[in-house]
Amino acid sequence: MPERPYNLNPGPAILPLEVMEQAQKELLSFRGKGLSILEISHRSKDYEAVNLEAQQDLKDLFGLPAGYKAIFLGGGASLQFGMIPMNFLAGGAADYVNTGEWAKKAIKEAKRFGTVNVAGSAEDKNFSYIPALPSLKLSPSAKYVHITTNETISGTRWNAFPDTGAVPLFADMSSEIGSRVIDPKRFALIYAGAQKNLGPAGVTLVIIREDLLSKCPDNIVTVLNYKTQVEKDSLYNTPPVFAIYILGLVLKWLKKQGGLKGIEAINNEKARLLYEVIDATGFYRGTAARADRSTMNVTFRLKTEELEAKFLEESKKAGFVGLKGHRSVGGCRASIYNAFPLTGVKDLVAFMKKFESANS
Amino acid sequence: MPERPYNLNPGPAILPLEVMEQAQKELLSFRGKGLSILEISHRSKDYEAVNLEAQQDLKDLFGLPAGYKAIFLGGGASLQFGMIPMNFLAGGAADYVNTGEWAKKAIKEAKRFGTVNVAGSAEDKNFSYIPALPSLKLSPSAKYVHITTNETISGTRWNAFPDTGAVPLFADMSSEIGSRVIDPKRFALIYAGAQKNLGPAGVTLVIIREDLLSKCPDNIVTVLNYKTQVEKDSLYNTPPVFAIYILGLVLKWLKKQGGLKGIEAINNEKARLLYEVIDATGFYRGTAARADRSTMNVTFRLKTEELEAKFLEESKKAGFVGLKGHRSVGGCRASIYNAFPLTGVKDLVAFMKKFESANS
Repeated sequence: MPERPYNLNPGPAILPLEVMEQAQKELLSFRGKGLSILEISHRSKDYEAVNLEAQQDLKDLFGLPAGYKAIFLGGGASLQFGMIPMNFLAGGAADYVNTGEWAKKAIKEAKRFGTVNVAGSAEDKNFSYIPALPSLKLSPSAKYVHITTNETISGTRWNAFPDTGAVPLFADMSSEIGSRVIDPKRFALIYAGAQKNLGPAGVTLVIIREDLLSKCPDNIVTVLNYKTQVEKDSLYNTPPVFAIYILGLVLKWLKKQGGLKGIEAINNEKARLLYEVIDATGFYRGTAARADRSTMNVTFRLKTEELEAKFLEESKKAGFVGLKGHRSVGGCRASIYNAFPLTGVKDLVAFMKKFESANS
Repeated sequence: MPERPYNLNPGPAILPLEVMEQAQKELLSFRGKGLSILEISHRSKDYEAVNLEAQQDLKDLFGLPAGYKAIFLGGGASLQFGMIPMNFLAGGAADYVNTGEWAKKAIKEAKRFGTVNVAGSAEDKNFSYIPALPSLKLSPSAKYVHITTNETISGTRWNAFPDTGAVPLFADMSSEIGSRVIDPKRFALIYAGAQKNLGPAGVTLVIIREDLLSKCPDNIVTVLNYKTQVEKDSLYNTPPVFAIYILGLVLKWLKKQGGLKGIEAINNEKARLLYEVIDATGFYRGTAARADRSTMNVTFRLKTEELEAKFLEESKKAGFVGLKGHRSVGGCRASIYNAFPLTGVKDLVAFMKKFESANS
């Protein structure tokens, strides 16, 4: 087997090696039953246990209070961009904060169902910052407020969240879910495509406050109705079984890292080391405002595009894959999600220093 | 490792053992690259190859002519029940044939978007038959005709398809896709949740005639628009990578079985053997009309419910799992999808004969 390169892809992204090893080990015989998780019924007791354990582990990890429910859906976060206004906008108005490409996509879909007030935007500076909380123009009559807590492409993150009073706060946490301690009570709905921090592509986590469900209209497509999905425990129709199984293994791995508090400390240290080398001499330059830097997606530039191309080429040869910035912005990006090891960051930092010495 | 039981589950269902073995073997290092298929980018060359190979293998297997495109979506066939009328009904009328529980669900979702003419129904006899083609009340002004070519619960199958003239024929083939030779030109849209005959849960195959795409409205959610999904080659947003990878392996396995012609011959022999023992003495009784029997889902009853319970219990002990009929109809059902081996059917037949002798 070849050596494993360091996987810095923005998503689908690195998974804990021990999770993949366990999946490999039991791929032909799930929990000793002689059948694969790929071919067992979603109505079987074995799968029921997978579903319930994942829900319980989420509750434990996030400290979900009573009245919150976690469900697992197919279709990706892009489907949630549509499902949210389909369920909760219905001709009314909602506040969206435009912090980047993903927020823009969410806004685009919401406009199909009602009025979108852009309560704040960072588009004036190429999405390099998060609008200050006091600057947000939130409306007390909004059906909900929607934010994107981490922007994968520009590498920014919300460090504090707006107080939206009685208006429910909805958050796309796709690229940072489970990377830090958050207070779930601040949010009425959290969603995240799993393929960055929680599992493989193919499943989306939704954490929803159950009092919202009374607002879901009856006349929408059944599988797109949050009420159905919550009432049926994500089992109205066949769920993406394997992806949920892997997500469940990742949650158990997260618990072993000390839960969200434990992983947050590791993530902070990883990000600190990386930003330290970026800030050291001016050879590298971080693109996000310092106060709003993401600990998951570390975006940076070099002096010229030629030098960036050389950096990307040599980093790849040195065993670091996925460092290229998003095609819409260029530059470099290190996605150091939960499963990316501290030793990997140390090795990357060493490589960056060496590259700097050789090219200064 | 325990011995593998015979998996007769209706879906998620048995997969070819060699497919699962290959997936297991390369789970930590896909195509020798040192990264898992679970963690590679959907924009990588490696995944692009998976996506293109699966499309090409589908074209080869189904003999898709130019002008047809295969795409891979999340969300299950239940999402297609909604996507189809969302894209193609738009306040008009469509013909649906009500052949069972799955057809009924498709009808329920379509009614949200326009008028549904039930052009034929088998509900009068508990969905035990397929309405005769000449009895269908098809409307020349229908936007489309929708049929469910195999009903998993009642165990019926369409053996001939209606001639719908200029009206596009749409078919849910979830529980029989790839089990027999069909003429794709008879259909304008075919869809199938993969988890019965093509792969694991989490991906849905859609084969669509491209001239339909001009009818998809612009004002629907982007990921729910067939036009987007076709134009972007199922890569508008992150697809269910692993499920599509397994589906691709199953397609290659199907080619090795002699394609659809080869697998159809095996499937016919499997079904023949099973119906033979069911018809032999009256101890077992098939529930579907003989002319409309499914070769995938073989439904049958015994004389009393007590005897059925005993049959199910003893069959399980003998290593056959999943023989219980759907909870809505009771009785017994053997789902003998493509991957279920002929030897397994022979062993099941032997068990059924033995059980009959002991309980006559």
